[in-house]
Amino acid sequence: MRNICLHLAFDGTNYCGFQVQPNGVSVCQKVQDALEQVLGSRPDVKGCSRTDSGVHALDYVLNFHAQIKMPLYRLPLALNAHLPPDIRVKRAEEAAPDFHARYSAHRKTYQYRIRNSAIDDPFTRGYYHKVPGNLDVEAMDRAARTLEGIHDFLAFCAAGSSVAAHGDTVRTISCCRVDREGEMVLITVTADGYLYNMVRILAGTLLEAGQGKRDSDSLLRVLESRDRRQAGPTLPGKGLFLLRVEYPQP
Amino acid sequence: MRNICLHLAFDGTNYCGFQVQPNGVSVCQKVQDALEQVLGSRPDVKGCSRTDSGVHALDYVLNFHAQIKMPLYRLPLALNAHLPPDIRVKRAEEAAPDFHARYSAHRKTYQYRIRNSAIDDPFTRGYYHKVPGNLDVEAMDRAARTLEGIHDFLAFCAAGSSVAAHGDTVRTISCCRVDREGEMVLITVTADGYLYNMVRILAGTLLEAGQGKRDSDSLLRVLESRDRRQAGPTLPGKGLFLLRVEYPQP
Repeated sequence: MRNICLHLAFDGTNYCGFQVQPNGVSVCQKVQDALEQVLGSRPDVKGCSRTDSGVHALDYVLNFHAQIKMPLYRLPLALNAHLPPDIRVKRAEEAAPDFHARYSAHRKTYQYRIRNSAIDDPFTRGYYHKVPGNLDVEAMDRAARTLEGIHDFLAFCAAGSSVAAHGDTVRTISCCRVDREGEMVLITVTADGYLYNMVRILAGTLLEAGQGKRDSDSLLRVLESRDRRQAGPTLPGKGLFLLRVEYPQP
Repeated sequence: MRNICLHLAFDGTNYCGFQVQPNGVSVCQKVQDALEQVLGSRPDVKGCSRTDSGVHALDYVLNFHAQIKMPLYRLPLALNAHLPPDIRVKRAEEAAPDFHARYSAHRKTYQYRIRNSAIDDPFTRGYYHKVPGNLDVEAMDRAARTLEGIHDFLAFCAAGSSVAAHGDTVRTISCCRVDREGEMVLITVTADGYLYNMVRILAGTLLEAGQGKRDSDSLLRVLESRDRRQAGPTLPGKGLFLLRVEYPQP
């Protein structure tokens, strides 16, 4: 059995997330269907991250164990022939026997994309959250930087999540920045792990800082409160992208 | 009657082009439908360019004469409420009484987008022509530059077009360049006017230069031949974007 690692890009619009769910079509299920077509067996797949419904990925990593005879450079094209066009396998490589897409990951980078305009873009609709009106991006960036470091992020975790109930809510954000690119405002977060809905709640809270609804130094108080109600709203999944996952050098 | 100028962006995938056609839904028709809803009358609309079926636009310009009481800054949002999401009005402004979106235009810039990869991109599928295999972008750029200047472009005009039959096939290309941006190869052309399918045939011919199927200095011979069969294939409409239209300063 070889341990195979796949890199995917997917448009999450039509999926309930990566993880198989009782209701809704998952990305994982589509990948397993394609693997079954190509390999003749249906391997167990480990994804680098659950992603919420509607969330996109530019470089999603998964692994599975299987006996594969074909050269690995052929695997992406073979799988893509059996995948819907909104899911593409970009690369396949052999991983160390103990590599696990989720547990081996050191850090993951997500980006939340806001379109700061009253007018939608016909080419990227579905890939951002629209916010008309003035946004103070410098205030958002100042607020974002206060989140960097080791913190208890319970206030930024969806209420009722099982992780929240078990108390393991300390994470390390190594980088949290907000940049403007034309009409797009990009919130980029790199952390060792994330709580349920954490980036979407962070983005909703930073957005309030950009709209003058809260001070940019108020986020530390939100962290200290450990109270979900002190943070901002959960922004829609369609604006969220998994950008990359980092693993230790082999 | 005021002369109103609108700037649009549209994803042309689902349209037969800008121009109203006997079969197929046109962008113009959708804009007229929205104008009728907002103004209560259906104005005659002059577009800056016919565009082929499936061709996209980042900044399409049109004008129409109408009596409008509302402030013009409100017109884009009012029209967008009645337009499908793949057509957006970006801006409305009052034009000089004799402004005509097509006849007043000095130059138009189109871009043909090639994705030089065996693997599609799930987020921009529908917005490029995919070409796997090596592409010599420097050779494409050298070939592109030989097209700059005043030439008879009959060889780059769809056979059987009425313009070709009438002999008015001299155009001035002020800039024609090919650039690589990651996996994308972008062919950008600025000219005072275009023949039917001209950019798509130019792109198909430059592509052959990039694939080593023709010399990069062979394009002048194609021009001189005035023979459509000497040029390359017409690439699909979905890779073509109208980028901008230039008008004299008022």
